[in-house]
Amino acid sequence: MTQYLLTRPHTLISLTAFADRYQSAKSSISEDLAIIKEVFEEEGLGELHTLAGAAGGVKYFPKMGSAEALSIMNNICRQLEQPERVLAGGYLYMTDMLGQPGLLSDVGRMFATAFAHLDIDVIMTVETKGIPLAHATAACMNLPVVIVRRDNKVTEGSAVSINYVSGSNKRIQTMSLARRALKEHARVLIIDDFMKAGGTIQGMMDLLFEFNAKVAGVGVFVESGELESEERLFEDYVSLAKLTAVDMKSKQTTVIPGNYFAEHVN
Amino acid sequence: MTQYLLTRPHTLISLTAFADRYQSAKSSISEDLAIIKEVFEEEGLGELHTLAGAAGGVKYFPKMGSAEALSIMNNICRQLEQPERVLAGGYLYMTDMLGQPGLLSDVGRMFATAFAHLDIDVIMTVETKGIPLAHATAACMNLPVVIVRRDNKVTEGSAVSINYVSGSNKRIQTMSLARRALKEHARVLIIDDFMKAGGTIQGMMDLLFEFNAKVAGVGVFVESGELESEERLFEDYVSLAKLTAVDMKSKQTTVIPGNYFAEHVN
Repeated sequence: MTQYLLTRPHTLISLTAFADRYQSAKSSISEDLAIIKEVFEEEGLGELHTLAGAAGGVKYFPKMGSAEALSIMNNICRQLEQPERVLAGGYLYMTDMLGQPGLLSDVGRMFATAFAHLDIDVIMTVETKGIPLAHATAACMNLPVVIVRRDNKVTEGSAVSINYVSGSNKRIQTMSLARRALKEHARVLIIDDFMKAGGTIQGMMDLLFEFNAKVAGVGVFVESGELESEERLFEDYVSLAKLTAVDMKSKQTTVIPGNYFAEHVN
Repeated sequence: MTQYLLTRPHTLISLTAFADRYQSAKSSISEDLAIIKEVFEEEGLGELHTLAGAAGGVKYFPKMGSAEALSIMNNICRQLEQPERVLAGGYLYMTDMLGQPGLLSDVGRMFATAFAHLDIDVIMTVETKGIPLAHATAACMNLPVVIVRRDNKVTEGSAVSINYVSGSNKRIQTMSLARRALKEHARVLIIDDFMKAGGTIQGMMDLLFEFNAKVAGVGVFVESGELESEERLFEDYVSLAKLTAVDMKSKQTTVIPGNYFAEHVN
């Protein structure tokens, strides 16, 4: 039962399904669920919600406790501060970290914790480095992912394209999304790897407007805090880490836990 | 213990670690592991391997039984055959399917089954649609992912670029990989979403040669079987599905399970 729940997050499973599967009485299933619930909470794996009634059942919400999250994120910040990560333009090389399954599953669980209370239909990101983060979050929240392309590929069918101005370097760029990728009125969680002024995310928001879809939330892995706050294009987002200083000469950077840790104290 | 193992595939966990964690004697840990092993095998979740000795412990290999895999893949083939998926050039729209966490975790488990016996350091794919498949496989195999770019982004540092000829439409294209993304002599599993003649994968192989790395295996989600076999650039790959016929007029396609189901009978 533990594995069945763990591999089906954000999915309502009826007691009848469990009773049939394990050929047990519903009463003993309930007792077992109570034990599992306790263990999940003790181990900081998340919450098990029980819904009573005929349409009822049990749903597993993967979450991460704030102490565990902070300890993991402090560790990630130290990795991000390695001097060899500093690239031209004040960017940080973090592609290698975004390829680590352990880090991705931790980050996915943090975003799933931050956005668990929201009503979301789909997770959106833009290629390329946001994709693993979006999918790691999607796996924890049982949500589909749509990927905004920076070009318009033949294999996607008809698409909507928009131009947007990257906020930090003021260049005009194009992004597009297949017409069939998103339903009207979808509630969308935007996930991306890095945000400076927020031009790319603002572009995704403009694209959502074209689809009559709604932004339910924005989560970024690292925000650059080197801007005056009036330069930021929008205010409502969750960041897991914040790059507060880059010294290009000495290649010294400072990375601290993001606003996630200010707002989401359990 | 079940959840601990499930969330740490392909990772050696010592009995001492379990004994400390659950404050139990190693003998009772061993007994519990024997039960978990049985349940995992009954439920088709994979194998639990025990290594004896001081450096020993237990390792979980996520796998999928061939009957379950075939039933899931037949279902996927029916979805791929939907007429509205046919796009110009004999391509299939499948981006929506590659955004579904359930499908991805099934496919990841199939690739993890096919390549479990190989000695692999890293999984490689090319942006964009191969990325979720590579990460789903990586999550099951506890391996890092490197993503080959179709351009050369500023945020990656120095990179190696090669030109390759896409086998089906004979166009010359460029792909590149950050110099620091891959160690010398790494053993690499290539994962991609779609293969016609194999030009893109051949390009990745050529790129690996530049890094002195080695191809350990190739896995594709869908192969196009509409070619004469001499047109295929290489022979040694695992495909999960095979597109055998596309009628552009009637938009009828036929998709059958791939060579995975011929070769990997458990």
